[in-house]
Amino acid sequence: MQIHDYFDEFARRDWDSGADGTVRFAIVGVGGFARKAALPALADADYAEATVLVTSSPEKVEDAAENHDIDHVLTYDEYHDGAATDAYDAVYVVTPNALHPEAIETAAEHDKAVLSEKPLAATVEGAERAVDACESADVPLMTAYRMQFDPVVRRLREYIRDGGIGDTLQLDGGFAFDVMGGSRGPDQWRLDAELAGGGALMDVGVYPLNTARYLVDADPVAVTATMRGEGVFADVDEHIAFQLEFPDGVTASFTAGFSGYTKSHLSIRGTEGHVELSGSAFGTEDPRRVTVHRNRVRTVVDGPGTSEIREEFDYFAHAVLTGEEIGPDGEEGLRDVRVTTAAYEAAETGERVEIRYS
Amino acid sequence: MQIHDYFDEFARRDWDSGADGTVRFAIVGVGGFARKAALPALADADYAEATVLVTSSPEKVEDAAENHDIDHVLTYDEYHDGAATDAYDAVYVVTPNALHPEAIETAAEHDKAVLSEKPLAATVEGAERAVDACESADVPLMTAYRMQFDPVVRRLREYIRDGGIGDTLQLDGGFAFDVMGGSRGPDQWRLDAELAGGGALMDVGVYPLNTARYLVDADPVAVTATMRGEGVFADVDEHIAFQLEFPDGVTASFTAGFSGYTKSHLSIRGTEGHVELSGSAFGTEDPRRVTVHRNRVRTVVDGPGTSEIREEFDYFAHAVLTGEEIGPDGEEGLRDVRVTTAAYEAAETGERVEIRYS
Repeated sequence: MQIHDYFDEFARRDWDSGADGTVRFAIVGVGGFARKAALPALADADYAEATVLVTSSPEKVEDAAENHDIDHVLTYDEYHDGAATDAYDAVYVVTPNALHPEAIETAAEHDKAVLSEKPLAATVEGAERAVDACESADVPLMTAYRMQFDPVVRRLREYIRDGGIGDTLQLDGGFAFDVMGGSRGPDQWRLDAELAGGGALMDVGVYPLNTARYLVDADPVAVTATMRGEGVFADVDEHIAFQLEFPDGVTASFTAGFSGYTKSHLSIRGTEGHVELSGSAFGTEDPRRVTVHRNRVRTVVDGPGTSEIREEFDYFAHAVLTGEEIGPDGEEGLRDVRVTTAAYEAAETGERVEIRYS
Repeated sequence: MQIHDYFDEFARRDWDSGADGTVRFAIVGVGGFARKAALPALADADYAEATVLVTSSPEKVEDAAENHDIDHVLTYDEYHDGAATDAYDAVYVVTPNALHPEAIETAAEHDKAVLSEKPLAATVEGAERAVDACESADVPLMTAYRMQFDPVVRRLREYIRDGGIGDTLQLDGGFAFDVMGGSRGPDQWRLDAELAGGGALMDVGVYPLNTARYLVDADPVAVTATMRGEGVFADVDEHIAFQLEFPDGVTASFTAGFSGYTKSHLSIRGTEGHVELSGSAFGTEDPRRVTVHRNRVRTVVDGPGTSEIREEFDYFAHAVLTGEEIGPDGEEGLRDVRVTTAAYEAAETGERVEIRYS
């Protein structure tokens, strides 16, 4: 069992059975991530394209519309009222977290497939509303966990599922960046507890959480946590350390941070080996490095760097076109919001909180 | 501020002001670690030598005595009765944890300096007895935290203290190995809750715990933990994940394990950078690697590999000869036993446990 075999056709799209057509997206919320990451990825996608922008400031997105040949720019009112529904097949929701449910409900009402950014909502109630709306309308709902579409992560998952490290024992990981860095100031929704549902955990802590869940194929059953926040972070967690308990006593020791030096990593120790995702384990820019330890041999694989966001759009569009089941669906997004909610309760009470999935 | 500067005279003994003489050691407990690690280190030391062995099986240590030119082999009864006290100046206690206090009390009684293996004792009460005995007799007591004498760790500490990564924010680390591997079977004191005071946490979890304390110069104030153990590990923690809270909300997410693939690592993220100790962060064999991230530059330093156990003996002997203060003293060993005791309470109750240091 050699990690090399798994990386031989590194970027293969194991989900791609071929499909006809293109899914046209309305981008709901045109902030930094939509402009810098999503629109370029869509421009490069095989099965997806952007045809509509929904924004509260139409004048501010003129350049983006022009650059990407997008004919329709709608206000939120127009979007909710059903304008230009002929111009798009699916909705990509990339608003502040608390506004996801209403954007998703409208999409469902208009019979549009939905790709929603993570976390699915700011609260369990919001996530339930989103899931219910899409179930009732029978439209696909996916939570945009881009890591699940990074070839490095998919190959690593295959390796782990085939027993590459034996049974999983302990995980550790984290994701932290300077949320105030660059042109970002204190006036951003990520620092607004109402809009974001929390701080570092909601924004970046979900990366180790969901990627771990994906890699080891299990749901955490309990959580303990410690958090802090001060100054501009008075309302949200600037830093959080949370410790998850999975079935069979498997543990995950994770952290998230909104200040200090950027860092992201994930490692999984098993009975027969351990694997590490480093470089930038969860970032959108730097390439990821996989290090595998097995039989006293350490193997390092540096991937070529792939746009996992383009892969994510193509995966979702392919599923919409073919009617295939979606991996990280709304239910999965809801489960993670249950975990983050329990983590905040654990941090506030100082007690181990069991996670209930129904 | 370049990490290179700190590693330029990598192995320098910053504690060595010169000393005359040699400290002669009685080795109390001649198990695998004494034979494979301590005796070879003492043979190579500048200020220390082994002159007495104390064992419950004199016939089994004949080879070791012969190989190292050791003239005195005592039973525990003879040791406690004060035999051959002229033949040694200091005692190195390397018995099962629960037996440290009585060996230390006897050493103090005979006016001998004491270097005791970690953890200082199996219980807080035992550690207090050890500290009290040495204080009353006015003999030096050191807890054998070998990592503090590894040049890699000392250089890294200087770098951190000089602000190399800014203020500390989050730590993560762990140490796990297969306690049943090699010729070791289930009949070993490390799996006996009475003798060891616990499992993986007591034996290897103290490495990230104490090394973190040393590197960031702070004591944890609270802990949460999750543990499991089954089969031969029914009485002790086979695996534990513990999360420490330091002052100012700094957190440390640590793990320890007694089965599965060997792994040890430690990383510290600060406001201005982060550092990682990898390779074998805490092992006695593999060299350690230091990776520093700062100003978007990643620097890797591979040390030449140094016997930190020899360094530890020489440090202690030098302190005994010169009367200088000891870094990891008995009080520090006692503090760590308070932390491990609190961690077990946290794991059993599922609650955050505050750590009291008096």
